[in-house]
Amino acid sequence: MTFALSDVTVLDFGQIFQGSYATVLMAKAGANVIKIEPPGGEPLRKRTPPGAKTTMSFAMLNANKRAITLNLKTPRGRELLFDMVKRADVVLENFGPGAMDRLGVGWEVLHALNPRLIYASGTGYGLSGPSRDNLAMDLTVQAASGIMSVTGFEDGPPVRAGVTVADFMGGTHLYAGILTALYERDRSGQGRLVEIAMQEAVYYTLAGSLEQYNRTGKVPKRSGNDGNGAISPYGVYPVKDGFVAIHTGTEGHWHNILDAAGRADLKDEPRFLTMHDRAACAEDVNAIVAAWTSGLTKAEAVAQAQKFRIPLAPVRDVTEVMRDEHMHGRGALEWVDHPDLGHVVMPTTPLRLHGLDVATMAPSPRVGQHNDEIYGGWMGLSAAQITALRDEGAI
Amino acid sequence: MTFALSDVTVLDFGQIFQGSYATVLMAKAGANVIKIEPPGGEPLRKRTPPGAKTTMSFAMLNANKRAITLNLKTPRGRELLFDMVKRADVVLENFGPGAMDRLGVGWEVLHALNPRLIYASGTGYGLSGPSRDNLAMDLTVQAASGIMSVTGFEDGPPVRAGVTVADFMGGTHLYAGILTALYERDRSGQGRLVEIAMQEAVYYTLAGSLEQYNRTGKVPKRSGNDGNGAISPYGVYPVKDGFVAIHTGTEGHWHNILDAAGRADLKDEPRFLTMHDRAACAEDVNAIVAAWTSGLTKAEAVAQAQKFRIPLAPVRDVTEVMRDEHMHGRGALEWVDHPDLGHVVMPTTPLRLHGLDVATMAPSPRVGQHNDEIYGGWMGLSAAQITALRDEGAI
Repeated sequence: MTFALSDVTVLDFGQIFQGSYATVLMAKAGANVIKIEPPGGEPLRKRTPPGAKTTMSFAMLNANKRAITLNLKTPRGRELLFDMVKRADVVLENFGPGAMDRLGVGWEVLHALNPRLIYASGTGYGLSGPSRDNLAMDLTVQAASGIMSVTGFEDGPPVRAGVTVADFMGGTHLYAGILTALYERDRSGQGRLVEIAMQEAVYYTLAGSLEQYNRTGKVPKRSGNDGNGAISPYGVYPVKDGFVAIHTGTEGHWHNILDAAGRADLKDEPRFLTMHDRAACAEDVNAIVAAWTSGLTKAEAVAQAQKFRIPLAPVRDVTEVMRDEHMHGRGALEWVDHPDLGHVVMPTTPLRLHGLDVATMAPSPRVGQHNDEIYGGWMGLSAAQITALRDEGAI
Repeated sequence: MTFALSDVTVLDFGQIFQGSYATVLMAKAGANVIKIEPPGGEPLRKRTPPGAKTTMSFAMLNANKRAITLNLKTPRGRELLFDMVKRADVVLENFGPGAMDRLGVGWEVLHALNPRLIYASGTGYGLSGPSRDNLAMDLTVQAASGIMSVTGFEDGPPVRAGVTVADFMGGTHLYAGILTALYERDRSGQGRLVEIAMQEAVYYTLAGSLEQYNRTGKVPKRSGNDGNGAISPYGVYPVKDGFVAIHTGTEGHWHNILDAAGRADLKDEPRFLTMHDRAACAEDVNAIVAAWTSGLTKAEAVAQAQKFRIPLAPVRDVTEVMRDEHMHGRGALEWVDHPDLGHVVMPTTPLRLHGLDVATMAPSPRVGQHNDEIYGGWMGLSAAQITALRDEGAI
């Protein structure tokens, strides 16, 4: 098998979602990812319910990694890190800003030991500035970054995006920054400090709202599923068994809806001629669209959309997505037997490079599962030395 | 100045948001990005209101690019592309699947001309499978991918995340895939077809919902700003002038809230001892938190959060984010004079590699602004040849 990142070794202090997403993408691309946890395991493990061995999110985000324990609060633990850093390409962490510095294992110390080392830091607000030390979680970054202010309905409170968009935008940018540094290292010979702040990583997603503000001078409000006075038809429409979403981009899409709805008579209606016209009477347009969709099931609406070329999709719940035959057929999702979870659906990777392989799913490891393999095999320590490390609390 | 990507030339057919985000990140990192549009301009330009010269979203997504026109529907236009491909590192496009193939300029044709070329395709559902040709926009991908099903309140309809999360998750993964291919090309000498599907790029963001399903066996519902029975305090709380969001991760965070609220007496209350305990009576916990926040302004709440170490953030509107002093101080945002928009705030890049430079903001180009510079200077055509190309409709 041929992998994109087969010559890359990663020391992965990633925890929860942000950091671990960057490194699971690297692991799927064939990198040697060593997950390093404190002896009690990283915080995401603490969500494991009583009686269970792991969680789905942990399993998704830590597949294809090997796990070791390391206690950075001990001198011997730090020495072990220094020894590993000399043989590694990437260190990644998403602790609070300055946490690694306070332990004496920050960028400057590690860079001095290995000038080719890439050190990636994922935080909420970055490594400098007055907001640096504000505690950041996905929800609070969604609040501070403006996402919540435009999510939900105008007459209701701000709402979070129901998925952890800040964590994963942060994690994807971490991967992007690390790969940029790896590419550049081949030219300069130098490792770099890669710094990603979640708040910055989501700023561009406000593009539509910033455009609206620039156009109108008014602060964009929550507009539910409306097209903000600019796009019509746009929105969520009822079907017999749920909802579908429609987002038209052209006059052609509108005409296709009218054909599907048996309302070709409206193609020449002056009030509906252009996008601008329709947006000005979006309620009337929506009533025509809803009259069509509400006579269909989700599946019928999708079939009509394919036949008439309409940008429509069913609003699917999480289990419908998880079982999506299209995604399974493409290898984006697969049924696997996970030793801790049983027969479950797991994602592979959204990064597809044709002609290169994706690592075959290896289940997420237990705490310290690969201590012997890494400290013994890779670092060359004897079984007695590893036992001593364990006894003194260094691993 | 030293850039990470100074030796990378990109032929950028990116349009709207997804493709253009990947290439603006490359441009900010110093790549030579040539935006190629049909003679009438790409679709995003069509949103420019009457009397205006461009839009904020276009300006954000196309800074630091040079723009040329090219008509791929003419033989001479295709020849020009072939000539450019021989000198380029990356071609990126986010047209519908197969559009470039139908024009005779798809991956296989271009790869044969330049085996080192990286060809990046961004789509909604990928280049294969039964959903391949479903029309995809941000809203419809949010529907099909499960995001909308968990956004909003249980007693209300599904809601889109108010930001274009699918487009930008797609764009970030496109960048990530391209950089992976550039890194791998240095080893194999081969260019690759990089394929990103928005639907796949957002799947991991469902991690929390998939975890919930795996734990409970029940389809995750919209839960507004609740902690899904697992986290408390968690949510959006009223302050005098708006809302704040709080997301606690540890018992310590709860104790810090009690200290700030002057309710240290509740630290030993049995009903509130552990996260699990609090989640079981989240309404009571929320009432205690809200009693504290509702006596404060946003700014006072933030100051208290900093003092007492509480994961709290203000729910900020788009203009508050745009003017964030912290982000301006860090250089994530800057005030610039844009020839078409005036004095506006523009983002730089969330990809920070210390020791490397970010390109100084160059304003987004007008349609075909750099035809002479690229076709003349780079491709070596004479002024007469360029005029002839224009006259025959090839550019």
